[in-house]
Amino acid sequence: MYTMSKICGLLIDLDGVIYNDTQPIPGAKETISWLKEHNIPYRFITNTTMKSRETLAAKLTSMGIDTNRNQIFSAAYAASLYVRQREGCCFMLLLEDAKKDYRGLECRSGTADFVVVGDMGETLTYGLLNEAFRHLHNGAQLIALQKNRFWLSDKGYMLDAGAFVALLEYAADTQAVLIGKPARPFFETALSDLGLNPEKVMMIGDDVESDIRGAATLGLKTCLVKTGKFRQKDLDKSGIKPDFLLATIHKLSTLDSYFNLQ
Amino acid sequence: MYTMSKICGLLIDLDGVIYNDTQPIPGAKETISWLKEHNIPYRFITNTTMKSRETLAAKLTSMGIDTNRNQIFSAAYAASLYVRQREGCCFMLLLEDAKKDYRGLECRSGTADFVVVGDMGETLTYGLLNEAFRHLHNGAQLIALQKNRFWLSDKGYMLDAGAFVALLEYAADTQAVLIGKPARPFFETALSDLGLNPEKVMMIGDDVESDIRGAATLGLKTCLVKTGKFRQKDLDKSGIKPDFLLATIHKLSTLDSYFNLQ
Repeated sequence: MYTMSKICGLLIDLDGVIYNDTQPIPGAKETISWLKEHNIPYRFITNTTMKSRETLAAKLTSMGIDTNRNQIFSAAYAASLYVRQREGCCFMLLLEDAKKDYRGLECRSGTADFVVVGDMGETLTYGLLNEAFRHLHNGAQLIALQKNRFWLSDKGYMLDAGAFVALLEYAADTQAVLIGKPARPFFETALSDLGLNPEKVMMIGDDVESDIRGAATLGLKTCLVKTGKFRQKDLDKSGIKPDFLLATIHKLSTLDSYFNLQ
Repeated sequence: MYTMSKICGLLIDLDGVIYNDTQPIPGAKETISWLKEHNIPYRFITNTTMKSRETLAAKLTSMGIDTNRNQIFSAAYAASLYVRQREGCCFMLLLEDAKKDYRGLECRSGTADFVVVGDMGETLTYGLLNEAFRHLHNGAQLIALQKNRFWLSDKGYMLDAGAFVALLEYAADTQAVLIGKPARPFFETALSDLGLNPEKVMMIGDDVESDIRGAATLGLKTCLVKTGKFRQKDLDKSGIKPDFLLATIHKLSTLDSYFNLQ
């Protein structure tokens, strides 16, 4: 008889699961407390490119979820590891706050080894894009924190980092390395930090493609929440069947029989 | 016996054939005079997106080549015809001077039918790109004046319009209509203005792909000049064999036996 192995740890998306932009999602704080009570380890894993881990940890803590930056795996941070491991320096299309995870990695002169592209919103200029392009033209490798086309802000639809990655790919006739979800190494880094095999870990997210399909491909269990960017039609269209579907992360404790609780 | 039909008219590229940026190419003026003496009709056909036909005509005239704007087919002007024929209005990523060919076509409010993308250089901002994207997201059609990746300015390599077209194609998940060379309708418009069949017309250009291959596909005769962006290795790599290869346009009169001279 096939028995589903118990859930021993979690990877949890932030935006749309724990909070919507600046608003905490009701019950998120209580769910994290419940995990702590039962010694279920977890890491936050987010495609956010605009904030450093330090800033994200402070944001969570201000919402009553005590967090230190080592519990957070962001696409921006993962890319900094990628550059650091290769002993390179980089040119960044990133906001100042996100650059905090890149201390010592910024290319001060000459040609960068890597060009790292996140979302800079309205601070992105032709001059910066052109500088990035020249590094690529001279042989730098293009690193995409994520490849989202656009996002919905309070002010309407906004171009996201993926669009600028596409621009640079075309101009420099190259292909970016994708760092954020659903890229396999990103999940693997967080799993390795948990010290658990994929089948013992569940991913909780609101994005059918990057969270659920991405995690399922690696053999993680998956839990889709109906908050944030969740749309029933996206799920129907995707052909993906997450292991669990919850109204919000607050309902996580109803799955207690699937957990290896202590 | 096959006899090559005589050349009765010419399509002539501007940048790299008649001038390099601000510098006239020696002998270009004399060659145009020679064409006039022998009543060989010609039109200038250029992928320039930064200047109006009026400005281009004034530039040629200042170089001693008397020209009126009706002799010039620019990608920017061709796109304005495209929009006008479809009775639409458009949002433009164009410099002010290039917009002169779009009188009455600019979308003043609501959703544009077309988004026209040329080279705006350093005046292009995130805000303008985002506005273009929103029009596309609402159903506007994307029009690319050209799809060049980059160009070499006095200050170094610069991102060209094609890169921004690629950005918008990705963000809005759409495919641009290409207006400039090597697009067939662009050549056809200029040919129709000449009133000559393709086999009686020769294209003179410095770009192997957009000038020579483009024109050959339509059945025009082709003449590649070794000025402007011409590089022997580009020609070798292309597998294209132009009908004629000249050091500069000044040598055109050496082909007099192929012309239908009057």
